[in-house]
Amino acid sequence: MRLTILLLSALFFLLACAQSSQIEQTNTQQPAPQNIIFMIGDGMGPSYLTAYRYYLAEGKQTEIEPTIYDELWSGMSSTWPDDQTLVTDSAASATALATGVKSFNGAISVDQQHLPIGTMMQQAKRLGKANGIVASSQINHATPAAFLAHNPSRRNMDAIADMYVDYRINDRPVADVMLGGGSRHFIRDDRNLVNELQQLDYQYAASWDELNKLTRAPAMALLAEGGLPSVLNQPIEAPLQHLTSKALELLAPSQQGFVLMVEGSQIDWCGHANDIACAMAEMHDFALAIQTAKAFVDANPDTLLIITADHETGGLSLGANGVYEWRADLIYGVQHTVRELTNRFSDVAEHDVAELWRHHTNLPLTDDQLANIIAAQHDKDDLYWVLNQLINDATRTGWTTTGHTAADVPVLAYGVGAEQFHGFMDNTDIAQRLMQMINASARSQ
Amino acid sequence: MRLTILLLSALFFLLACAQSSQIEQTNTQQPAPQNIIFMIGDGMGPSYLTAYRYYLAEGKQTEIEPTIYDELWSGMSSTWPDDQTLVTDSAASATALATGVKSFNGAISVDQQHLPIGTMMQQAKRLGKANGIVASSQINHATPAAFLAHNPSRRNMDAIADMYVDYRINDRPVADVMLGGGSRHFIRDDRNLVNELQQLDYQYAASWDELNKLTRAPAMALLAEGGLPSVLNQPIEAPLQHLTSKALELLAPSQQGFVLMVEGSQIDWCGHANDIACAMAEMHDFALAIQTAKAFVDANPDTLLIITADHETGGLSLGANGVYEWRADLIYGVQHTVRELTNRFSDVAEHDVAELWRHHTNLPLTDDQLANIIAAQHDKDDLYWVLNQLINDATRTGWTTTGHTAADVPVLAYGVGAEQFHGFMDNTDIAQRLMQMINASARSQ
Ligand SMILES: [Zn+2]
Ligand SMILES: [Zn+2]
Repeated sequence: MRLTILLLSALFFLLACAQSSQIEQTNTQQPAPQNIIFMIGDGMGPSYLTAYRYYLAEGKQTEIEPTIYDELWSGMSSTWPDDQTLVTDSAASATALATGVKSFNGAISVDQQHLPIGTMMQQAKRLGKANGIVASSQINHATPAAFLAHNPSRRNMDAIADMYVDYRINDRPVADVMLGGGSRHFIRDDRNLVNELQQLDYQYAASWDELNKLTRAPAMALLAEGGLPSVLNQPIEAPLQHLTSKALELLAPSQQGFVLMVEGSQIDWCGHANDIACAMAEMHDFALAIQTAKAFVDANPDTLLIITADHETGGLSLGANGVYEWRADLIYGVQHTVRELTNRFSDVAEHDVAELWRHHTNLPLTDDQLANIIAAQHDKDDLYWVLNQLINDATRTGWTTTGHTAADVPVLAYGVGAEQFHGFMDNTDIAQRLMQMINASARSQ
Repeated sequence: MRLTILLLSALFFLLACAQSSQIEQTNTQQPAPQNIIFMIGDGMGPSYLTAYRYYLAEGKQTEIEPTIYDELWSGMSSTWPDDQTLVTDSAASATALATGVKSFNGAISVDQQHLPIGTMMQQAKRLGKANGIVASSQINHATPAAFLAHNPSRRNMDAIADMYVDYRINDRPVADVMLGGGSRHFIRDDRNLVNELQQLDYQYAASWDELNKLTRAPAMALLAEGGLPSVLNQPIEAPLQHLTSKALELLAPSQQGFVLMVEGSQIDWCGHANDIACAMAEMHDFALAIQTAKAFVDANPDTLLIITADHETGGLSLGANGVYEWRADLIYGVQHTVRELTNRFSDVAEHDVAELWRHHTNLPLTDDQLANIIAAQHDKDDLYWVLNQLINDATRTGWTTTGHTAADVPVLAYGVGAEQFHGFMDNTDIAQRLMQMINASARSQ
């Protein structure tokens, strides 16, 4: 009897032990999420995340808290393209992020011989998953384009738009949900791609009101002729978060899961413009979009959220010209992008300039600075850089270029498989790991 | 019989199972390394690591490999000081890294009321561990000072040196091994601290030859009156690696383990000088020192290697002035720091300038650029910035300041407890985790 009890207890432990070691095995088998939300902050080098933290704290050291970027920080990625420059453009980097293969600057998912390279969304579609793209630029701009199309040059934007419709997998376009700007490339004299998609059963929205009425995939929304308005200039609260939320709502019912790419496209544009207030507004919208995506993961745990940048833009630094401070507190007063300020100041009467500057920026203005503005009013380019420098000097914000740099970029991750994105990696590693996950997720169904 | 065999097998599995779950428990109990090697690249923002990767590959994309920095990359740290600037100096940041408490710029481990804050080395000493500091600056420069001494101002370098001898724990100075520069602060008219340390049984070396003859702790080596010569200008191969290797040799016998702080001090100095060739030479020596430390961890697994920076210097970016490239390949040709080049070019005959420029930098020189050099020869400051700009323009290297910036900095980790340094953290978190480890390691003895 005793022996039997001992035996039974031993067997019980054996079972428990076996079960726990099975769990371990599953964990080491690289879990494959059903859904992948891949968010790309275009131009979002590491300094943009640091800047956003101090911007949120309004520059007060007693108010500094980790942001959502900080909470999810997981690794760093290199971004060099497959040419001699070391500095990538958005097309080469998006190609790496969409296919796992590096190419030359300008390439939209084609290799050095201009042959197409298969993308993760094409692969996901083949395996029965749904795909979505969201961008605050044109939806056929370099970054989203590399996930859906192939072209030797990002500049061929009409041809890329055509391919969004013409490239078929199982007789359907690759993307089920497409939300952003760029109607001028989709509704043209020679071809109306929106009509063609509607005939393929796509719902279509041409305004924010209509966007709210989209009820199911497939669906498209084109909310501007080109890119969406800069967040800092427009009345819509958090446009990217709004689009991300809608895309998740439309994709969630997909039986086999989905891949959604969300681009914070205009962080890069603010970087090119060396415009810190513009950049912080875009970073805030992107942060809110990340919060929406993270909440989706919490509600749908079989999801991976992965966030990175395609490259750094502008050589942004917090602190400049030898002074040991960065005045994050002054950025809140700047109410428009420098581009918009330039428009407003180019034909203001001289005696109104000082008052208008205070009104629009809440920044000090010396007599010399006032004279500089007035002297530059006749030339919008000159005026742009005068106003730009006033803001950058006051806030001690440094920039080294109106182009891109070779800086490594942050990698943030959350949800199933997030641990695969710890430490240093290359941008092609990110795509390769995601494509393995997409394959594994389809196999397990 | 069958029953017995079954029972025995069950018991065998039970034991195996119990053992494996015990290992798990130990792992979740926060392991405490016996030895901590804490390496600080002064001024080493994330772009310095990126730059070093491409410098090692000589700018050829086919040669790019992860560096030792990349291999160990683990997290990112914020560096803001406890004042309104957001941009730290080395003293405030070293205070945070040595004590876990933020203070004001200039503070050497004192708080806002100028009261001393206990440092991890003082704590380690109290618990019976040995301490070492290695620096390529003066060993009483801000960063090492914050680990050993207290002063309201980093500028009081003689007072700080005095405290290296006068501050006693269990009747002994806090550091057992001190290797670097700064003899002018230790051998003075009013006091000879080297003699005093020798009377306390310290071995002393005043040259690289004598350094090799140090046989045991306690020991001190002061190899320059101020900081050591810049790596790029001097004949000694990898001086910091050499010092790190010696410090580890002297500390390894410590029964209760040790805390060693190694500072790559002059990465920062090259950053202040906006001198990319200088910075890459220092980064290379620091990388070799890290390799030595990593090999020590492999041979002595009860060790944690942790590496970070106190802040970023210079607003370094790879790519500048709108051009999408960084010419890492051109840096190898630059054989001296810009400071040293300035000395050499200030009194060269005009007709020798072009030839000498080719000889010392292997960079092209247009007629206009030649004229600029000649025009600036009468003023060393002007000449410095002319030569500096030639190198930065040719390599497309961008800088925004001769001071520091608020950029987050890399955190690298290897060995026991490395997993505690994943993701985003503050510089005070690093110190707090290390101090917990030091306490826990002493408790377990
Ligand atoms: Zn760009
Ligand atoms: Zn410094």
